[in-house]
Amino acid sequence: MSPYRIAVIGLGEIGLKRHLPVIAAHPNFEIVASAKRHPVATDIGGRQYRDYREMLASEPAIEAVAICTPPDVRCRIALDAIAAGKHVLLEKPPFSTLGEFRRVRLAAERAGVTLLGGWHSQFNVSVDRARDILAGQQVAKLEMVWNEDFTVYHAGQEWIWQAGGFGVLDAGVNGLSILTEILPEPLVVRAATLRIPRGAQTPIAVDIDFAGAHDEDRLHAGMDWRTPTAERSIEIVTRSGQRLWMPNSGRRLELDGTVLVDEDNMEYPRIYDRFAKLIASGGSQLDEAPLVVVADTWLVGRTVPDDTAI
Amino acid sequence: MSPYRIAVIGLGEIGLKRHLPVIAAHPNFEIVASAKRHPVATDIGGRQYRDYREMLASEPAIEAVAICTPPDVRCRIALDAIAAGKHVLLEKPPFSTLGEFRRVRLAAERAGVTLLGGWHSQFNVSVDRARDILAGQQVAKLEMVWNEDFTVYHAGQEWIWQAGGFGVLDAGVNGLSILTEILPEPLVVRAATLRIPRGAQTPIAVDIDFAGAHDEDRLHAGMDWRTPTAERSIEIVTRSGQRLWMPNSGRRLELDGTVLVDEDNMEYPRIYDRFAKLIASGGSQLDEAPLVVVADTWLVGRTVPDDTAI
Repeated sequence: MSPYRIAVIGLGEIGLKRHLPVIAAHPNFEIVASAKRHPVATDIGGRQYRDYREMLASEPAIEAVAICTPPDVRCRIALDAIAAGKHVLLEKPPFSTLGEFRRVRLAAERAGVTLLGGWHSQFNVSVDRARDILAGQQVAKLEMVWNEDFTVYHAGQEWIWQAGGFGVLDAGVNGLSILTEILPEPLVVRAATLRIPRGAQTPIAVDIDFAGAHDEDRLHAGMDWRTPTAERSIEIVTRSGQRLWMPNSGRRLELDGTVLVDEDNMEYPRIYDRFAKLIASGGSQLDEAPLVVVADTWLVGRTVPDDTAI
Repeated sequence: MSPYRIAVIGLGEIGLKRHLPVIAAHPNFEIVASAKRHPVATDIGGRQYRDYREMLASEPAIEAVAICTPPDVRCRIALDAIAAGKHVLLEKPPFSTLGEFRRVRLAAERAGVTLLGGWHSQFNVSVDRARDILAGQQVAKLEMVWNEDFTVYHAGQEWIWQAGGFGVLDAGVNGLSILTEILPEPLVVRAATLRIPRGAQTPIAVDIDFAGAHDEDRLHAGMDWRTPTAERSIEIVTRSGQRLWMPNSGRRLELDGTVLVDEDNMEYPRIYDRFAKLIASGGSQLDEAPLVVVADTWLVGRTVPDDTAI
């Protein structure tokens, strides 16, 4: 079977460093073109266009697109790509709003094309193993820590501080996307605090308390961009006393001190494996659960000002 | 068939004035008891309890409960009522978060009880007629106005200004619940402004711009609690030029100037009609779409301070 002809729309940090090299090495995909408002230097991006609409019109051979722009413009691009009959892979978070999930899902169903929402942190073997272990159990303790120094990982990303830009939740939603995959019950946000820097509309730090089955349960997620060292880990203790420990962005899994999984980052190759399988089977996978937790955090959260200079 | 034995939990303004009289007059329901932390004077509320848990334990004959408390405690109460095997009717908005919808829906499915989310503005004949007219059409213009003077309609409701309390969206979500019912496509929030009074966590006024199919389309919803006179209306113009006008909280419907529906408020009797039918058929109806629009408004909205004293 010949590889799927694909184009990448949006060549920022993620498009350039994550998507292009993985596509170049993947047996099921062949890059045809890419679109980016300002040209970038790469020899693995195919023919470059400034305008994705011009690309879609000029390259009818394209069968699929990967949308790696900031989230606020993805819905419009996805609808245009679907209207042109293309399969669509979306970087995470796939969209800024839940309404966009609904509208794009409906358009893809009508057009008969494949959608894949690429919540990359879900594409780890540790996630599948943790889900199996937690099935049918009750969680007595949850502590998610998703901390990093924003000046290292998000320097110059102005959109991230604007309304709809997610702020620290852009990183934290990766941890949340693991939680929604592995936990045996839907997460209920009970209370939250969002710390908003002056001049920003999005938080630099967020604390979320989730409702547990018992009053004494502590289910908490903290994400903080004001920390000098990065830590991205999840700890879960079940009612029966089992302890799961997932450090290293959830790529390692320990159960009661025994290492079950410890992988390198295989997330993006697996996203493209899945995308190829979904196209071949005519399926779609577009999970809104992580964004539901973010939305609920805004719905019941208290916002407080923060003095960090951004 | 004998009427369903029902209890009301939460006897604030809505419980006392909307639910109790409708239950008293309804052939399919018979009030057994009610629960309210501070006793209130009513002779149509059945036996009064301070604690709903004591009521559930003391009155095993209760078959259904109507939960009319503020939204933040409804999830806990609903889960307790479901665990006791009761059917559950929820005032609007049924819950503060989308996660609560998911968790309660799952619990009700497992227990085999009926859930009804009572978005009361949806229970008008005008809503059904408008949905039929708009099916398969495109909306070129939408203008929802949901204005009232909060000192008249929400005096003393402190919870409404606290995190999770909705503010003006508690009223505006009624209009949104009509939109999500009648529009032919899911609403996509493109931009929004939330005006937050000092000392409050929730907005006193909100503007929402929705994405249209064409750039020149104007789809807007405005809700404002700073206005001296109440106006609650929806205007829709279709691509083909039809104009729907729904004033009076959507209870009147005009199509191109011709009155199709003009009703008194029959919303609560119809909610209880529906609840009885759902219990009899083993069905449930718990629509999260209106809260999705509120959540999306928070996700992409800009917050700005407001000087109104609350």
